[in-house]
Order: sequence, then C-alpha cells, then structure tokens
Amino acid sequence: MSIQREGTGFEKVAIVGVGLIGGSLGMALRNRRLAARVVGVGRDAARLEKARALGAIDDAATDWAEGIAGADLVVLATPIQQILSDLERLRSHLGPGALVTDVGSTKAEIVRAGDAASGPGGFVGGHPMAGSERSGVEAATAELFIEAVWALTPSAQTEPAALARIRTMAQAVGARVITLDPEAHDQAVAVTSHLPHVLAYALAGLASETARRSPHLYDLAAGSFAGATRVAGSHPDLWRDIAVTNRDALGAALRAFRGELDAVLDALEAGDGDALHAHFLRGYEAKGNAPV
Amino acid sequence: MSIQREGTGFEKVAIVGVGLIGGSLGMALRNRRLAARVVGVGRDAARLEKARALGAIDDAATDWAEGIAGADLVVLATPIQQILSDLERLRSHLGPGALVTDVGSTKAEIVRAGDAASGPGGFVGGHPMAGSERSGVEAATAELFIEAVWALTPSAQTEPAALARIRTMAQAVGARVITLDPEAHDQAVAVTSHLPHVLAYALAGLASETARRSPHLYDLAAGSFAGATRVAGSHPDLWRDIAVTNRDALGAALRAFRGELDAVLDALEAGDGDALHAHFLRGYEAKGNAPV
Repeated sequence: MSIQREGTGFEKVAIVGVGLIGGSLGMALRNRRLAARVVGVGRDAARLEKARALGAIDDAATDWAEGIAGADLVVLATPIQQILSDLERLRSHLGPGALVTDVGSTKAEIVRAGDAASGPGGFVGGHPMAGSERSGVEAATAELFIEAVWALTPSAQTEPAALARIRTMAQAVGARVITLDPEAHDQAVAVTSHLPHVLAYALAGLASETARRSPHLYDLAAGSFAGATRVAGSHPDLWRDIAVTNRDALGAALRAFRGELDAVLDALEAGDGDALHAHFLRGYEAKGNAPV
Repeated sequence: MSIQREGTGFEKVAIVGVGLIGGSLGMALRNRRLAARVVGVGRDAARLEKARALGAIDDAATDWAEGIAGADLVVLATPIQQILSDLERLRSHLGPGALVTDVGSTKAEIVRAGDAASGPGGFVGGHPMAGSERSGVEAATAELFIEAVWALTPSAQTEPAALARIRTMAQAVGARVITLDPEAHDQAVAVTSHLPHVLAYALAGLASETARRSPHLYDLAAGSFAGATRVAGSHPDLWRDIAVTNRDALGAALRAFRGELDAVLDALEAGDGDALHAHFLRGYEAKGNAPV
C-alpha cells in the first residue's frame, strides 16, 4: 500500500548522485510527499547513509542497476560526464513508461544522449539554477528550489506528457520553470554562468602569478577582487566537464568577451577617455542605472 | 585656544571633496580629536551642509582658496582629475610646512603632480582601500578605515617627516598602513581592482547585448553573474579617470588577462580537458584550496 500522495507524485524516484542538488531534491520530494519512496544511488555507502540520516532519501543503493530498477522517475544529479555515461547504459534498465531527467549545467550534449538512450520521449533535460560554490548533501535543503529558475530543455523528440510531468514536479518543489531549446540554454549560460567562472579562475590565477613579483598585491585587493574571484573556489572537475560539454557556446562567449577587452585596450592606448566612459556606461546601464 | 589633542593632531584640516572617503575621514578625525577643526571644501553648499549635519566637518567652504588657507593638512578626496587640477593650483595657497595628501585610486601620475605642485617634500600620496560601490557622505562612517589597508606611496622627494605624520594619522583612524612605490602600487591595483572593474563592465555590457537575441538570458543568470557584475554599478566618471591615469599598468594587466583567455580558448578548441582542468585548478588553488 503506497502512502497518500498528490496526483503528480511518483512511486519510486531514483536519484543518482545525492549531493547538493540531488539531496535537496530528495528532501523536497519527501517533505511534500511527492514520492512514495526516494532511493539514493551512488558508490559511497557512507555518503548515502549521511544523505539518509539528513532526510534526503528513504533508501540507499550502491548497486546502480538495483537502484534504478522499477523507478518511475530517474533523476541524474551527478557531474556531467557521469550523466553522459549513465545515459549510455540506462535504456536496458528502465521499466516501461519510466521518466528520466537530469540537473546538468549544460544541455545540448546531454539531451542528445538522453534522447538516444532513454525510452521514446521519456527523457526531459533540466537545469535547476540553484547551485552554489558549496557542495555536498551537507549543504542540501528542501527549500533550495523555492523561487529558483528551473530550465527544462525539451527536444523535438520529447513527449509533451513527459515534459508536463517534470514541469509539475519542479513547480511542486517551488521552482519557476522556463522551457527553451537546449542550444539556446547553452548559449545563454555560456554568458551568464560559464564565462563568469572562467573569468574568476583566470583572474585568481593571474593575480597569484603577479603576486610573486608584487609582494603587496593581496594587501591591495579590494572588495571587487573578492567578488570577481569568489567562484574560482568552485571545483575544477565540475567546470572542466561544463566547459568541455559546452565548448562551442563557451568559445563564442569567450571570443565576444575578448572583443570587449580589445575595445577597452584600444581606447586605453589612444588615451580616449570618452570611449572608455561610453564602454563603462553601457555596463553601468545594464545594471539598471540611469545614464550619466 | 585650541582643544586638547593628541600629539599627532592638526590645527586645521581642509578636506577637498566630502564624499564617502573624505566624509569618513572627517568623522574619524573629529571623533578621535585629531584635528582642532575640519573644514570641508566643495562647490555644493547643500552637500557641505549635509556633511556638517552628519558630523563629517566643522565648517564648510565653497570658496576653494578660503577653505585651503591656513590649513596645516590638506586632504584631496575628489575624483582623480580634480585632484590633478587642484594640485596644479595648490602651491601658492599653501602656508609654510603645510602637508598635502590625497586618497586617489591611482598614484604615479598624482605623485608626480603632487611633488611638482606642493612645497618641497610636503606631498604624500595615499590610497585608503575603503571604497565601495556606494558613494556620497550619506554612506560615510568614522569606522570606515578600521582594519582597512591604507597605501602610502612616497617618492624620492618625499620628506620622511611628512610621510611619518601621514602614516600616524592613517593609523590613528584605524588603518593598516603599507608603503610602496607609486608605480608598484599602480601595477598591483591594475590587477586587483581596475581589471575586476573592467571585467564587470564588459560582462554586464556583453550580457545586455546578448539578451536582445536571448530572451531567457537573465532568467539563467546565476549567483556567479551577479557577483561578477556587481561593481559595474560603480560610477563611469570615476572609472574613466582611473583607467586614463593608470593606462599603462591597466593595459599591461588587460593584455596579460587576454593571454589567460586565449589559453582557455586554445584548450577549448582542442577539446583538451586536461589543459582546462589545469587552468581552472591554478585559480582554485589561488583561492586557498588544496590541489584536486
């Protein structure tokens, strides 16, 4: 006998990768009684036990196939490369009608793999904008998705009913759902998320090299430096995967950004204060300020 | 009869430009009884009256020459271009033994002008690292300098006694004083402050242009975007002046940074995940993280 749930609920949700996002989703689904049972799937029994103790999952499975078996919803919440390799082996383990979604930060490559690997129409790519430089189930909270944007990226192959169920689930945990093409998603986040991370890593790295010949460098680091390098504390493994799987869009964003810097350099070399002012003003206005 | 002051105090301090920094310094000097009288010098009588009401100054002078006259310390706390033009006309207005300092964000050009314009050895370039994207005397506080780095940038011409008095004043308001060459200062802040501002303006501007063809762009802007563009809300007039007066060092920093981006682009185009990882790891370690 299953517990009483809302009509939008699932019998067995398998969450592969119970970190910040996967763990928070497990907590949110359990708190809102949207799943009869949430099974955490992973390789590290101790970490899964911690997730269970924190209320993120009902049960743990270190055997991947056993964890997936019988699930009517599989959520892939690992780093991107593992999402891609899990998708490759998923199809033969899925029951009829099972839905698959993911929470990866890039979408085009994952959606191609998901469409190829899941049952017909049963894959819906997703990206909840709820990460942080913190990670791990210790940072998870059932409230993580409240007011957060959760992007869903259906392809031509996605069943409308599958999209509707995943949308309902995301909304039920508090998220604001937007839908867009996987490619449009990847181009947007290349500018709004991946480029800021590359800039942060590059600036933190450049400063560390400059500091070797500039002993007071960090004494002269203001709030702007701390803000600009904060996300350089994000895990390089994660960001290698993101960069590699979004290399076309990130490359385009980087080239466009290099063009911005070249414009500043040209103005500097010409001593053209008006051009510098116009360039800075555009960014200033983009932050919602009136022209000056 | 002057009030009782510490031995490090001044009779009349003229603060030209009573905004966030000038106003905070006035408050700190008055609260600690380091000046018998603090005179605010500016063009806007209403703003000076506000500064007086907030306790930043004792008296206001909209007549520049009258405000300076008889001061034993003149603090130039306006935007950089006005500091430079004030220095040009300052010499004939200074009494014997008067000290002059400034709080501008670039130092080499200001120190050259200060050495030329003030009495022999009487100019000491300074840069308290206590700004923010807020501005105006409304944001001023006597505690602004506590634990803040205050860079002093003596030249070969600076009298050691003048440097010592300014150092004592900065320490008396709570700052941690460092001394370094004006050129070394400018090269360091080009990387730790000016470059982050240019990156923020460029990223905010690029995003606003990309948003025209990417309607969900700002929906997909994560915390990293907010952090990376925060200081694009700084005033473009201020940053034009900073960029122009530090164009050599900022240009060098921008070229070095462009080299970082080129390395990322090369790795992306080669699909070289190891090179991307190494690049990101260097920034990650620079933030104090152990290698991964």
